[in-house]
Order: sequence, then structure tokens, then C-alpha cells
Amino acid sequence: MLIQRLTIIGVGLIGGSLARILKQTGSCKEIVGCGRNEANLQKAIELGVIDRYELNPATAVKEADIVVIAVPLGYIAEIFTAIQDSLSPTAIITDVGSAKACVIADARQYLPQHLPRFVPGHPIAGTEKTGVEASFAELFKKHRVILTPLAETEPSACETITSLWLKTGAEVVNMSVAHHDEVLAATSHLPHLLAYNLVDTLAKMEDRVEIFRFAAGGFGDFTRIASSNPRMWHDICLANKDALLEALTQFNLNLSQLTEAIAKNDSQYIEALFTRAKTARDKFI
Amino acid sequence: MLIQRLTIIGVGLIGGSLARILKQTGSCKEIVGCGRNEANLQKAIELGVIDRYELNPATAVKEADIVVIAVPLGYIAEIFTAIQDSLSPTAIITDVGSAKACVIADARQYLPQHLPRFVPGHPIAGTEKTGVEASFAELFKKHRVILTPLAETEPSACETITSLWLKTGAEVVNMSVAHHDEVLAATSHLPHLLAYNLVDTLAKMEDRVEIFRFAAGGFGDFTRIASSNPRMWHDICLANKDALLEALTQFNLNLSQLTEAIAKNDSQYIEALFTRAKTARDKFI
Repeated sequence: MLIQRLTIIGVGLIGGSLARILKQTGSCKEIVGCGRNEANLQKAIELGVIDRYELNPATAVKEADIVVIAVPLGYIAEIFTAIQDSLSPTAIITDVGSAKACVIADARQYLPQHLPRFVPGHPIAGTEKTGVEASFAELFKKHRVILTPLAETEPSACETITSLWLKTGAEVVNMSVAHHDEVLAATSHLPHLLAYNLVDTLAKMEDRVEIFRFAAGGFGDFTRIASSNPRMWHDICLANKDALLEALTQFNLNLSQLTEAIAKNDSQYIEALFTRAKTARDKFI
Repeated sequence: MLIQRLTIIGVGLIGGSLARILKQTGSCKEIVGCGRNEANLQKAIELGVIDRYELNPATAVKEADIVVIAVPLGYIAEIFTAIQDSLSPTAIITDVGSAKACVIADARQYLPQHLPRFVPGHPIAGTEKTGVEASFAELFKKHRVILTPLAETEPSACETITSLWLKTGAEVVNMSVAHHDEVLAATSHLPHLLAYNLVDTLAKMEDRVEIFRFAAGGFGDFTRIASSNPRMWHDICLANKDALLEALTQFNLNLSQLTEAIAKNDSQYIEALFTRAKTARDKFI
């Protein structure tokens, strides 16, 4: 089914990659981009990622069949407010935010009339890069997209957004909001927090120049996610604060027991923990 | 200068890779392997990595010009004890241990007569794999090898070990023992501890199957080092305990401040920390 007009608000890595694959598959008659950074939008036109752009979200969503909101979490409430009176009454709205409870709270507040056609979503894909130039059509291929529909969401709206994501080569999975936020806190938000915190700790050390000089490949991999966009991850940490702090509490509890075992030379404890971790990782990854 | 006989005790990833490049460059007349796992040593012969092998370290080091000890840190004292009476009086001894103070303490205790020809070393290279089959001649190329010579170490012994490592394509750097152990605690041992601890924390969660199912690429990179050999990293954590616990204290201090900032919605603090970390990583990596 050809989508007549799809509007993407936030034409960055995620929004740009989605636009690229929808273009490639001939899924949309027109893709309208929207954002604050006009140079980025012009680049998106040059790269053939979008057909045209608007700087004003209210104008951008006019007569759109589908609206994809792909801005950092901190801007979602603002976008909902901006578009609430301009959305077509049949427009289906989705987002790509990494935390879902906060986005849904904002939707309930600012888009109450549109809840039946709002399908909260989260593609589990990305790189540490940002901007339309980092986008590529294969980003979502073989990745998972989680949808967390509301009680109010119409099945047909879910179907539309599911088939949209299926075009990208992704697998689409439905999940409850709370479960999504817990799972993502554990596997994504906490690792980012730890990676940022480790690099910052080292950067504060007196011999930081030597320290980074002797960092090997393992360190580079471990901290790759600390090269991610600081503002975006700031937003995610605050948006998913409760689940993140809970995951962090469990991490800290485990770490304090491990620390005590090292201090006490408790070989058995240390080796058992490392072995459990290696087994779990080798099995699941 | 052709080395007449070089003995490598521990023909795994590191020992095997060193043997391969020394073979390739025609640097040794004979490479003798030694280890506990005879199947691994036979594999090393089949792969052409070593010329012959001995299961007894005392026999293996006889008439060797250079002895490279590449066993896990927990076995070094045992190897020193086993070889102390069989070493040639002119043999130069080196090791590849990831922590140096403990190895040097063992050398002072078990090899007091050989200290002038003992050159403690540490190649900053590796993968999460182990065993001679994981070894490859290019492992050390463009990597750094740190030597931490003692006050007693003869300059000629240092020169011999330096030129040995230069043959691998590595850069050789001298460093004090304490500085080595601090730098490595920060950039290698602490990240391993955190990665093991994170995976174990997640593996203990009720919804662990879901959690690992939705782990994306960032998680895979962040935890790659948690697939490393548990016994080896157990040894490293205990061998470099003091420096590791000190680095961990600093990490925890930084993390508790960051946690408080998240709990209090202190946007400025969070974004500043993430930005410092990204800047440091992008600059140094």
C-alpha cells in the first residue's frame, strides 16, 4: 500500500535511515522532513533522503497519513504541542524514543484526541553517530523494533506501523511499556551510563594522557558507546530514570559483593562470577 | 642476531602469536614450547608454531638463550620455582603478565640470582580468545609492549628483549612498575571487571531471556571483554588488586555523583559529564 504523505520530524540517524529505506522500497509518494537544523534538512534533500522539508512541525504534518517523530526524547513534548492542532484526524503517529513511559505520558497530555492512532515505537538499532549523513538504508535490517501500543490504540494503526517497519527488514515485537523500559534500562541505558562514567573517571586522573595512550582494543570497544551524543543520552537517562536507577542499584549491589571478594582474595567467588558472565554472554550474544 | 634456542612456557594466544612471528622472521634457530596441555602443544607443532615441546618447564628451559613466560599470572610463581635450577646462567627471562608488581615480587623470591637478566614485560594486545589456535603472527603489530625493568636488570638484557619485541612490529616503551599497574588497572582491568559484573547482574534478572534477546550492538561491544577467559581475569584482578581497587573507588565516586544528579534531574551535571567523556574518548581513541 502506497503511503501518500509521510512526515518525519527529526531527520537524523534514525529518521534519515527510515526515510532512505522507504524511498528505496517505493513505499511513499512523498516524504516530508522537518527539523530545526536547516543545513541538515538541505543535506537530506541533496542525499535524496526526503522530498521536501518544513521548519515548522505544524506545517510539516499537514495532510500527512503517517507522522514519525524521531527527535531526542527531550523535545517530544514540544513537538506534540506544536502538531496537536494540525494533525489530520486520520493521521497515524509513531515515535522512535528509547524510553516509552515518558513519551506516552506526554502523548496523554498533549495529544489526547489522537491516542487511538498513536503507536509508541522503538527501533533497537543505532550507531554512535548522528545526523542525516550518518544514516543508511540497512540500519534496521535484522534488528528488532519494539511497539508498545496503548489500551486505546486501534489495531489498524498498529498494523500500519508494523508494516512500515517490516519494510526496513526489521522484526517487529509488541511489549508492555513497563517491560520495555526495564529491558532497555538493563541492556542499553545502564551500559551507556557506565561507559560515560568510566571515560570521565579516567579523564579526571592525573596521568590521563598516559592512560588513554595505553588503552587497547578492549577499552575501545567497551567505551565506544561513550562517543554517543551527550544530549540524547542525557534525555534518555532522565526519561527512563526510574528503571535506570533500579538497574543501577542491582549492578551496584553485585559490584560491591565482587569488590569485597577481591579485597578478601575470595578466588572461588570471583571465578564463579566471571564464569557465569562469560557463559551468559557466549550463549546469548 | 639469530637466537639459538628460545623457550616459550605457555603456548596460548600470546605465546603462540609471539612464536609465529619469530618463526616468520627467521629470528630463532629453535623454539621450544612448554605447557600442561599436551593436545595444545601438539596442535602448536602441527601449526608450525613451535619446533618441539616439553611438558616439564625445568627440561624446557635447558640451554635456552631466552625464556618467555606466557602463562596466566596465577601460575608464574610455580613456573619460576620449577625453572630456577635449570636456567642457563646467561639466559634472559621475560614474561607477558598483565600486572607487574606481583610478578616482580615472585621473581625476587624465586629467581634472586637471575634478576640481572629478568626483564618484566607486558604486550598490550590480545583478543577474548585463548589457545594456540587463536594465535596469529600480526597480533602485536602496531601495538605497544611495556617493559618495567628492575634496578638490577642489565641494560643488555633489556636490549635483547626490546629487539625481540621490535621484530613483532610492536612499539616498545619502558615504564615504572607502579605506573604500569595503575595505568592498566584503569584502562583494562577495571573495564573487564565492569563488563563481567554487568553481564552477571543481567543474567540474574528474572527476565534475563528477554533482556539478552533485546540487547543491541552497543551491548555486544560493551560486553565483548566479558567473554574473556574467567580464570585468567581472576588471576589479574587478584595480582593487581591494590591498583584495581583504587581505580574502582574513583569510578564509584564518580558514579555515585552521577546517580545523584540523575535522581535530582540535574541536567547540567549529566550533560557536562557525558560531554567530557565523549570529548575525551573522541580525542584519545
